[in-house]
Amino acid sequence: MTTTDAPLSGVTVLDLSHVYAGPYATLMLAQAGARIVKIEPPAGEHLRRRGAVPGPRYAFAMLNSGKESLALDLKSAEGIALFKRLVIAADVLVENFTPGVMDRLGIGWDTLKEINPRLVYAQSSGYGTTGPYATYPAMDLTVQAMAGVVSATGYPGSDPVKSGAAVCDFSAGINLYGAITTALFRRERTGRGGRVEVSMMESVFPMLMSSLSSHYSTGEEVERVGNQHPGLSVAPYSVFATKDGHVAITCEGDHHWRALAVLMGRPELGEHEHYAGVKARVARREEVDELVAEWTGTLTKEEAFERLRAAKVPSAPVRTVAEVASDPHLAARGYLYPQDHPELGPITAMGSPITFEDSDAPARSASPLHADAEDLLRDLLAVGVEEYEQLAAAGAFGTQPDTAR
Amino acid sequence: MTTTDAPLSGVTVLDLSHVYAGPYATLMLAQAGARIVKIEPPAGEHLRRRGAVPGPRYAFAMLNSGKESLALDLKSAEGIALFKRLVIAADVLVENFTPGVMDRLGIGWDTLKEINPRLVYAQSSGYGTTGPYATYPAMDLTVQAMAGVVSATGYPGSDPVKSGAAVCDFSAGINLYGAITTALFRRERTGRGGRVEVSMMESVFPMLMSSLSSHYSTGEEVERVGNQHPGLSVAPYSVFATKDGHVAITCEGDHHWRALAVLMGRPELGEHEHYAGVKARVARREEVDELVAEWTGTLTKEEAFERLRAAKVPSAPVRTVAEVASDPHLAARGYLYPQDHPELGPITAMGSPITFEDSDAPARSASPLHADAEDLLRDLLAVGVEEYEQLAAAGAFGTQPDTAR
Repeated sequence: MTTTDAPLSGVTVLDLSHVYAGPYATLMLAQAGARIVKIEPPAGEHLRRRGAVPGPRYAFAMLNSGKESLALDLKSAEGIALFKRLVIAADVLVENFTPGVMDRLGIGWDTLKEINPRLVYAQSSGYGTTGPYATYPAMDLTVQAMAGVVSATGYPGSDPVKSGAAVCDFSAGINLYGAITTALFRRERTGRGGRVEVSMMESVFPMLMSSLSSHYSTGEEVERVGNQHPGLSVAPYSVFATKDGHVAITCEGDHHWRALAVLMGRPELGEHEHYAGVKARVARREEVDELVAEWTGTLTKEEAFERLRAAKVPSAPVRTVAEVASDPHLAARGYLYPQDHPELGPITAMGSPITFEDSDAPARSASPLHADAEDLLRDLLAVGVEEYEQLAAAGAFGTQPDTAR
Repeated sequence: MTTTDAPLSGVTVLDLSHVYAGPYATLMLAQAGARIVKIEPPAGEHLRRRGAVPGPRYAFAMLNSGKESLALDLKSAEGIALFKRLVIAADVLVENFTPGVMDRLGIGWDTLKEINPRLVYAQSSGYGTTGPYATYPAMDLTVQAMAGVVSATGYPGSDPVKSGAAVCDFSAGINLYGAITTALFRRERTGRGGRVEVSMMESVFPMLMSSLSSHYSTGEEVERVGNQHPGLSVAPYSVFATKDGHVAITCEGDHHWRALAVLMGRPELGEHEHYAGVKARVARREEVDELVAEWTGTLTKEEAFERLRAAKVPSAPVRTVAEVASDPHLAARGYLYPQDHPELGPITAMGSPITFEDSDAPARSASPLHADAEDLLRDLLAVGVEEYEQLAAAGAFGTQPDTAR
């Protein structure tokens, strides 16, 4: 399953995480060559079980590609005992429960470090394990609200709106990946494992850098700016309507503006005193935006983009979700690739945004719940057929519903 | 400057990157204990030089905390020669130029790996170094457009709007950090360095997971949903107006809804057949949202949040940028901390979202341009006073404007 030459080849990860942040971190670990043992509750991770709408099962498949599945009943003594044996065999443990849950299960870091001091214990939570918000409920929407992303998004004078991207979940997931690889590096040098944590709120905080630095340096509140430049210091810088959608355009330099003026068939505007120089254009932003919109309105978004690109004006079509889902560039790079899934049939799988010159993405799809359990336990703990049956009879794995397979 | 026990203690990084993605990655490296040599053009990185508005200089200070500065003229033979000597002394090189720029400067990976095969060469770009979009212009706005974030953000039936957070720049930066730590881990085990790259577009792609998986499983286009749940399968799930701002509320479970009904002073709604069960509430979403808004409109956002929190209903106040900038939780955790800056005076510095149990953030502020150059070159390359003067006279450092200091 793992490539021998892959960067994290030989690293075994116990993954207790669920939904987005944790599973995305371990997907990235899998794609860098680690072996991921996804430890699920007896009925399966709840994203796997959301059968009513088709999206969640597909998301589960995409996020858990290349992972092995083991159902464990962590509320049974047998489940906990087996988990502790696995901890001895593992390099990394990942979880994204609310702080305190692992301690209540009796498998917090203070316990596990006695069992395996080389273990890297990595956790992600909404606000971290310390500070007044530590136990606040944290989901992508609430952390976006608390971290200022909602307030900073939308048009001035209108209601705030969340980012349509799950920025908190996934930025925490990426940080969790980096936390683990950093701790693994340190372990190579020192022999020590350790606990490392990621906060979702801190993961998104720097993303408001333009607005934050403007506030810090002026002391003034910062209003949302729609599609304008966060510092309102570039023009044009916006999203413009076309015949069939929108196109994003920005002219940081005067040469961009001059090139755009030529495209618009009005080369004289490039040198006109009203528009030459970014300060002049910023002062007449609305007028500038109207001029640009007049031109984009005569084209499709792809036509506008092709012309802007040829003229070296920074721009991009506003692609819809369906367009992004089948983006030819992502396919050409091998980032999106076809995969066969045991239940869903042919699906589109995604790679890692981190590409090593000499490493391949895993070809294997997400495992059905508990499907690899016997092989896995034989491999990691030398559990034989007989012992496996005993563990099952004692309730270590709980009961797997047929529907969850 | 670096903590001996810090995870990346002893790692030396040459940082050629600029603005957000690269400098954020090396800020995180600095906070994990690496030594960062920020190599700037003779006049300084352009974010440092944007003097007209105060925000960019503050952003520069926040993003470059704890880094040493070296001005190098990479268009001079002396600058290139000195750079190559530094490469021998370094563990990591970071850059986020448009693909091809380093090759044109004569210091691409193919050249540098001959000089130092243990070097980790890490690069971030908008679309990666391969594929049809490789040389497309990439800034946060254009990548948000291309990756579907703009299309997925905003209210249904209204114009799309970008995320107010610079999600592309910073998610690429976090991935770049993880790329480097992964490559360093591999180098510990294999002795080999290597080239690793990050694509901004691929960094944000998974953030649309809910929308993408919905599209992949139905084949249908996915419309933006304002503040609603991306799959429209939870209600209430939105941002509601209060007396002084907004509050985000979500009721994934029936127990959340029952608790909310009690808070609203209408406990009978908790069990009412129109609202009991998430499917019933989803079917009457607008009606449910009106009921909730009626209640939130009587409170301030903090009052609403305190009551919801006490009743264990997932929620959060929609905090403004100014509120986030002085968030007491982030200060209590030591994520935001005071720092003295040579030009700006006392500033607010930020830590890393990755917290190791036993590691401290760097106390040092961003260096003035080229301020540490002599010490740095003595330390890394044993360059003495005389040789330093020769290098300066030969133009290796170019000319530093006084205003940039």
